[in-house]
Amino acid sequence: MKNRVTIRDVAAASNVSVATVSYVLNGKKKVSEETKQKILTVIDELGFVPDLNARGLTVKDTKLLGVVVPQTEPGSKLMFHNIFYSELLGSIEYAARQRGYHVIISATDVTEDYLQLIQERNLAGVIIIGTYQNQFFSELKTLDVPVVLIDSYCKYDYFHKLRIDDENCSNLATEFVIRQGHKKIALVTGHLQEDGVMQKRYKGFLKAIEQNGLEFQKENLYEATVDYESGVNAAKWFVDNKADITAVVATADVLAIGLMKGFYEQGVQVPEDISIIGFDDLDISKYTTPGLTTVKQPISAKGERAVEILIENIENPQMEKVEEVFPVKLIERQSVRKRTEIL
Amino acid sequence: MKNRVTIRDVAAASNVSVATVSYVLNGKKKVSEETKQKILTVIDELGFVPDLNARGLTVKDTKLLGVVVPQTEPGSKLMFHNIFYSELLGSIEYAARQRGYHVIISATDVTEDYLQLIQERNLAGVIIIGTYQNQFFSELKTLDVPVVLIDSYCKYDYFHKLRIDDENCSNLATEFVIRQGHKKIALVTGHLQEDGVMQKRYKGFLKAIEQNGLEFQKENLYEATVDYESGVNAAKWFVDNKADITAVVATADVLAIGLMKGFYEQGVQVPEDISIIGFDDLDISKYTTPGLTTVKQPISAKGERAVEILIENIENPQMEKVEEVFPVKLIERQSVRKRTEIL
Repeated sequence: MKNRVTIRDVAAASNVSVATVSYVLNGKKKVSEETKQKILTVIDELGFVPDLNARGLTVKDTKLLGVVVPQTEPGSKLMFHNIFYSELLGSIEYAARQRGYHVIISATDVTEDYLQLIQERNLAGVIIIGTYQNQFFSELKTLDVPVVLIDSYCKYDYFHKLRIDDENCSNLATEFVIRQGHKKIALVTGHLQEDGVMQKRYKGFLKAIEQNGLEFQKENLYEATVDYESGVNAAKWFVDNKADITAVVATADVLAIGLMKGFYEQGVQVPEDISIIGFDDLDISKYTTPGLTTVKQPISAKGERAVEILIENIENPQMEKVEEVFPVKLIERQSVRKRTEIL
Repeated sequence: MKNRVTIRDVAAASNVSVATVSYVLNGKKKVSEETKQKILTVIDELGFVPDLNARGLTVKDTKLLGVVVPQTEPGSKLMFHNIFYSELLGSIEYAARQRGYHVIISATDVTEDYLQLIQERNLAGVIIIGTYQNQFFSELKTLDVPVVLIDSYCKYDYFHKLRIDDENCSNLATEFVIRQGHKKIALVTGHLQEDGVMQKRYKGFLKAIEQNGLEFQKENLYEATVDYESGVNAAKWFVDNKADITAVVATADVLAIGLMKGFYEQGVQVPEDISIIGFDDLDISKYTTPGLTTVKQPISAKGERAVEILIENIENPQMEKVEEVFPVKLIERQSVRKRTEIL
């Protein structure tokens, strides 16, 4: 068992004061070149590693970023039930590591605890994914820490914001299905929260329906937790209720994949009997059978850009707030069928 | 913008020294009940939050755990290409949060950097997933920090270890396929590293083949990165090479899911033309069509137990080393067909 080498050991071995070693480490005061070299040699010989926690006490940049991943539902321990978050987190961790930052992850719904974490850990910056209460954001604002919100329609302009245009993207997906000849279309979505991405996607869906002179039957709206199982349950519900539909728009790929499985189990063929379109383009979505037609959003690009902005803001506290909307594209695979019948 | 309340502010407002406030916070010296109550009231009024980084300087337990997720290959940024890791990480984060700990995640192959991180951040404990160089483990040993290894066959008894019996589990999967009447079986696996889980699974596979008097053709071994794409490529390779096989054992579900897609694309039906068995039982594996027959390992239980052991060891540095082997079970779905023909 090796005792940790401290700054005191370095000072003693170099025959200088602790303060002098500290000046060499933080560059705050000038130290003679000779003394500096002596200290650096000793640091090397003893294998001394400066303590970043101690650094956090005097320097603003602790090189530690916080990432908040929403829980799909209160009390759920499966932060990655929707693997969209794991893909996003992977890109954040990678981008941070490339720049010498470390990442603390938290899947939390108790937002007060998180405000405390930011202070306790002296986080240099925070990335927050998803929708939270306004109360949380207004308290967060007082903490004087750079924050990037991903997929948030929060109205505060104090934070950096990265997202896609969820309403338009969902409109794009629905328009595609309509152009394939579908007129009776269901929607399967996560819970519709005020200003949440699911609500925006629902709006975009409705707009496409209306713009094309179609009608949406409210009984064909299925709202549930965003996971595979909800998709399976939705398919069963549509079959049990003899829903008069030829296509389903899902507001997340995990829902769409669950739908495909659910219809398969009920003996309903995708895309022969029913067409399905997703939203996200997860890694898995091209490996399902049939391949999932979906709207691809730039998941990794969002994560990497969030880290880039955050570090720029940490280095330049006066930086202006950034708000960016990422482009998406429709990926056509095999889960939506063209209806050739004249209806 | 609110300035952070410091321990100095608390001391000043309480009319005591900084040291006295510190004693109340860390309980290291006795302070009169009256003074203690006065200080606690001031702490509450000012909204003071102790700095855990500062705490790390004097107290061993920084309440900060490190988790190392291996990169599937050097330079890969997709730490979650194999979603096995995201499921494991979800359970670790949850268990840690329940106990008031925070989690720093790192996907790293540069192990020296990680040893430095442990020291820089004063990590209270570390969970390491997967196989690393012996050199790394012997250096890690010198750092005097509790470590739990998950899925490691590292020979040092200095660390806690949690794993399944990979050789037996793979033997179980292969025996199942053989009992369904298959005699010509291929293996698709991740890279075979000395003492890695993939190598153990390969051994278990070979043992089952031998125990049943069958023969394994080396050209039916396909070794690649553990991701969906490798499975797709393997299927194409088997079809292109007119492999004389009726079943494939995959050493990971992501490989098995890729195989199903790859065979489907080549017009080969699963399980009618070829049977596939996986390993892991990921969340997605019951939602594929057909459902994937696989060996279920207790992913979340491993993650939760790792946190439990780590915290026990942090609180009791004299704790004896724990080594636990978790049970698995075979989950039969639809991807393996019973061969009824008399061969």
